[in-house]
Amino acid sequence: MTSKTLDFFYFIGSTYTHLAVHRAEGLAARAGVELSWRPFSVRTLMREQNNIPFAGKPVKAAYMWRDIGRRAARLAVPFTTRPPYPIDAQEAANRVATLAAAEGWCPAFTRAAYARWFLHGEDPGTPEALRRILGTLGRDADAVLATADGDAIRARYAAETDCARALGIFGSPTFACADGEIFWGDDRLEDALDWCLAHA
Amino acid sequence: MTSKTLDFFYFIGSTYTHLAVHRAEGLAARAGVELSWRPFSVRTLMREQNNIPFAGKPVKAAYMWRDIGRRAARLAVPFTTRPPYPIDAQEAANRVATLAAAEGWCPAFTRAAYARWFLHGEDPGTPEALRRILGTLGRDADAVLATADGDAIRARYAAETDCARALGIFGSPTFACADGEIFWGDDRLEDALDWCLAHA
Repeated sequence: MTSKTLDFFYFIGSTYTHLAVHRAEGLAARAGVELSWRPFSVRTLMREQNNIPFAGKPVKAAYMWRDIGRRAARLAVPFTTRPPYPIDAQEAANRVATLAAAEGWCPAFTRAAYARWFLHGEDPGTPEALRRILGTLGRDADAVLATADGDAIRARYAAETDCARALGIFGSPTFACADGEIFWGDDRLEDALDWCLAHA
Repeated sequence: MTSKTLDFFYFIGSTYTHLAVHRAEGLAARAGVELSWRPFSVRTLMREQNNIPFAGKPVKAAYMWRDIGRRAARLAVPFTTRPPYPIDAQEAANRVATLAAAEGWCPAFTRAAYARWFLHGEDPGTPEALRRILGTLGRDADAVLATADGDAIRARYAAETDCARALGIFGSPTFACADGEIFWGDDRLEDALDWCLAHA
């Protein structure tokens, strides 16, 4: 019916993305917009841009956790305890998400990874956590982990990161409309959908 | 009628504060909450906390201007052109605001300073700009500028900054409820008012 698409650029490891992972699909569907899940390495872009939001900034980091807890309550997003941070040092969870995006099971994987991280307090990027997540999704963990570690997925992940860089993206989540307009942050999701409907 | 108060901590020089300066008073009044305007030196806290949001970050800075323009349109806040940045190197406008807060004309002064900055594209912290602003407000510019440059106002400005630091503030605008709960950003104004009504 509609041909409107909103690109959901995100990184498993971004804290506020927890809110977007729970909200974006439902709000997009209600707006009649198709959501395209696009994992990318925000860590690479942040390093390039010298954009270090929380490391070494304890006052801002403390606020971030408090704000996410409050926003979760306000938006009816599950949030139980303060999860470990940072996570996914090898970006393995993000590469599995990249494979999942190529194969069509990215939303389910990403939701499971965030549940593991935010609700079970566990880094979803370790081999053990990834095996557990993949098991619950009925995926062949050995095959997935091997493929996600291979050159093709690494190249796709890098290409998605290049695409994000080209759009002027610097943080996760970022919602990108078809006309190139970008909206950073879960709290700009509604703005992004409105823009998408009105302009893109 | 009500005894609810929301402290509006801000710095003339913060870009997103332009939105809050236009919105906070009306939304607070509609919620039956009294707004207390409290200028402070976010620059001092940012230096202490190594929190440099835009300097040396051209990608993020470009997004910030675009986002403010879009938010202004969405929220019916005037925004004509990209104003100069940074401004008020001596924090003179902020010290005049501190004096104005002590004397009861802070909202009018702050609104005039932001109009000068955002709508006329002029640094409101220069002596010439301050004289023009104070003239439109019917204030004695010589007397105001002399007092704002004196020890008492400098001490009050520093004390307000100490207060902000003690609350865990790291950015402008920040809305602080009576129970110490803080909300950073114009986009948390509604959350802050709701919190204030429900808890503080």
